[in-house]
Amino acid sequence: MIPHLAITMGDPAGIGAEIIIKACERLKNRLINNSLRLLLIGSNLSLQTSCATLGKSLNIPEVKETDDNWPALAILHVGLKETIIYPGILSIDGGHFSYLAVEMAVKLALSGRIHGIVTAPLNKEVLNKAGYHFTGHTDMLAYLTGTRDSVMMLICDNMRVAHVTTHVAIQDVSAQITLKRLRYVIDITNQTLIELGLPRRRIAVASLNPHSGEGGLFGCQDIKVSSPVIANCTKDGLDVSGPISGDVVFVKLRAGLYDAVIAMYHDQGHIPFKLLSFNIDSATKTKIRGVNITLGLPIVRTSVDHGTAFDIAGKGIADETSLIEAIEYAEVLARARNII
Amino acid sequence: MIPHLAITMGDPAGIGAEIIIKACERLKNRLINNSLRLLLIGSNLSLQTSCATLGKSLNIPEVKETDDNWPALAILHVGLKETIIYPGILSIDGGHFSYLAVEMAVKLALSGRIHGIVTAPLNKEVLNKAGYHFTGHTDMLAYLTGTRDSVMMLICDNMRVAHVTTHVAIQDVSAQITLKRLRYVIDITNQTLIELGLPRRRIAVASLNPHSGEGGLFGCQDIKVSSPVIANCTKDGLDVSGPISGDVVFVKLRAGLYDAVIAMYHDQGHIPFKLLSFNIDSATKTKIRGVNITLGLPIVRTSVDHGTAFDIAGKGIADETSLIEAIEYAEVLARARNII
Repeated sequence: MIPHLAITMGDPAGIGAEIIIKACERLKNRLINNSLRLLLIGSNLSLQTSCATLGKSLNIPEVKETDDNWPALAILHVGLKETIIYPGILSIDGGHFSYLAVEMAVKLALSGRIHGIVTAPLNKEVLNKAGYHFTGHTDMLAYLTGTRDSVMMLICDNMRVAHVTTHVAIQDVSAQITLKRLRYVIDITNQTLIELGLPRRRIAVASLNPHSGEGGLFGCQDIKVSSPVIANCTKDGLDVSGPISGDVVFVKLRAGLYDAVIAMYHDQGHIPFKLLSFNIDSATKTKIRGVNITLGLPIVRTSVDHGTAFDIAGKGIADETSLIEAIEYAEVLARARNII
Repeated sequence: MIPHLAITMGDPAGIGAEIIIKACERLKNRLINNSLRLLLIGSNLSLQTSCATLGKSLNIPEVKETDDNWPALAILHVGLKETIIYPGILSIDGGHFSYLAVEMAVKLALSGRIHGIVTAPLNKEVLNKAGYHFTGHTDMLAYLTGTRDSVMMLICDNMRVAHVTTHVAIQDVSAQITLKRLRYVIDITNQTLIELGLPRRRIAVASLNPHSGEGGLFGCQDIKVSSPVIANCTKDGLDVSGPISGDVVFVKLRAGLYDAVIAMYHDQGHIPFKLLSFNIDSATKTKIRGVNITLGLPIVRTSVDHGTAFDIAGKGIADETSLIEAIEYAEVLARARNII
C-alpha cells in the first residue's frame, strides 16, 4: 500500500509551514509517482502565505475530513478560517492551531485513514495559554490515544537514545526508575530496533548515579533496579549490557559499540545526543538533523528534533532535513508494524 | 623561581610510572636547562622496572624527604621498599602506595618545598581496602589539607567545566545546590579563569532541571537558587549567564560562546566533557587529553583525566599527553598564585 502520512503544522508562527513546503518540494517525485502521500494539517492561510513568501508554485489543494479520497498532497484546515498568524509572533491562536492539528491527526490515525503522524514543533507556553494543559506533544499524544506508558527516543544516524524519564525534576527521577518501567523501556527499544531493521540490537543501559553509585556509596538504584532488570533481559535472550557510567556509555555509543542507549533522565540523554548529532546549520544556527520518535503509542508518531525557531520564522532560511528524516522514519515504522 | 612540582605515581599497578617516564623524557630539555623541576613520589621499584621495560635510560636518582636539595628530576620513595607490584594486578599494597604518595606530596606542598601536585590515577577499590576511606583523590586532598569546600574542574582546550556537586547520588543532588555553594563555585571558577590568563570570563550556569524546570512545572531550584545567584553575580560585575538548559549550554560552549560552564552534577558535566575532549588514542582506546583541576585547596593540584588503565599497564602503549598537560596547568596556576 502507498504510505499516507499526516504532517501537523505545529505553531503556525514558527517554521512549520516553511519546512513542510520545502520537504514537499524535495519529495515531489514521490508524491507524483504515487509512492508517498501526505496530508498536511493546520492553518491553510499560513501554508499558502508561506508558499507565496517562498516563491513556490506547489499546488496544495484543501480537502475536508469527510472527503472520500484525498489527493497525494493536500491540506486539511483546522481551526477558524479567518485567523491570521504572523511569523515569529506568539499568540493564543497559535496554541489553538497547534492542538487542533494534532487532535485531528490522531483521530485520522486511530481510524486508519492515515498510517502515521509527523509533527512540526509547537510552543508550550501558548499551548497552555490556549487552555491545553500539556508539557508538549508527547503527553498530548498519550492523552489523545489513551496511552499510559510512552517512551521518547531520539535518533540521528547510529545514535539512538531512549529515555526512562523525561520532563521530571532531577530530584524526582530516582523514584521513577522502577523495575517495571525500565524493563518496558528496554523491551520497546529492542522492538523498535527490530522495526528499524537493524541486524543487531546491542542495548546499553546508562547508570543512574555517577560511576553507577560506586558500589552503593552514592545511590543504590543501579544495583537494586538496573542490574536485576539487565540480568533478566539477558536471561530472556536480549543483548543488554550495563549499567554503564553515563560519561562512558555515550563515548562507546559514538564508537559504534551499541545500537541504542537507555538514558535514565532527560539531560542524560539529551546532552550527548545534541552534541553527537551536531549538525547545526551555519546560516540559521538551528539544528537540522535528528528525529524524535514516540514509542508505546497505538499509532506511529515521529517528529522533528528542533523547536519553533520563532527568530527565523518567515525568513525562508529554515532547513527541512530533520522533517524529511522524520517522514522517512514514520514510513519505516508504519511498514514494520504492518499498518501500511 | 624555577617551578618544582611533585608527581604522585598513583597505583603502581596502573600506567602511572609509564606515563611519568614518558613525560619526563619529553620534558628532558626543560629539566636539563633547569626551567622545570619534578619530584616523583611513589614506588621506586615500580619506576625503575618500568624504565627498564620501556628501554629508557633516564637517570632518576632516589632522594630522601630530609635532603636539603633535590636534583631537577628525582624519586622520593614512599612505603615499604621490598614490595613488588605487578602491572595490571590489583593489590592492597597498591592502595597503600597510592595514599602514601599523595600524603607526602601534600605535606611537601603545604610546607612550600614544592609548588604544586600533579597526580597519576589510583584505584578507589584497593585504596579503600587498604583502609583509606575516600571516594578518590579529591576528598583525600580535602582531608589532608583540612579543606571543606573544593571544586572539580575539567579542562581540555577551551572546554572548561566546573562542578557544583560530584560524587553524589542523583536523588541527593538538588538539596546540595544551595545559594552559597553555587556562588562559591562561580567565584572560584571566575578566579581560575583569571589565573589561566583568559581575556574574558564568560561563565554559563547549566540548569539543574530539564528546560530549567519549565517555569516551575518540574523543579523550582533553577528559579529559586540559580536565578538569584546569577543576578547577584551580574550585579557584582561578573559575566555570568543562565540558567541555560543542559542540552543547549554545552553545544554553545563548544561553539566558543562561553569560557566555562558550571555543571550542577557529575554526569551533567562529565558526559559532554568526555564527548567534547574526544581525543581517544586509536591504539590504546584510552583518553589522552583533558586535565582535572581541584579548586579551593590551599595547594595547586592538577591531575590526568583518565583512570589506571590496568588492562594496558606494563605494555608500553600508554599515552602521556594528559599528564604533560596537567604539569603545564599546575605550572600556570602556581605562577598565577605567586607560589613560584
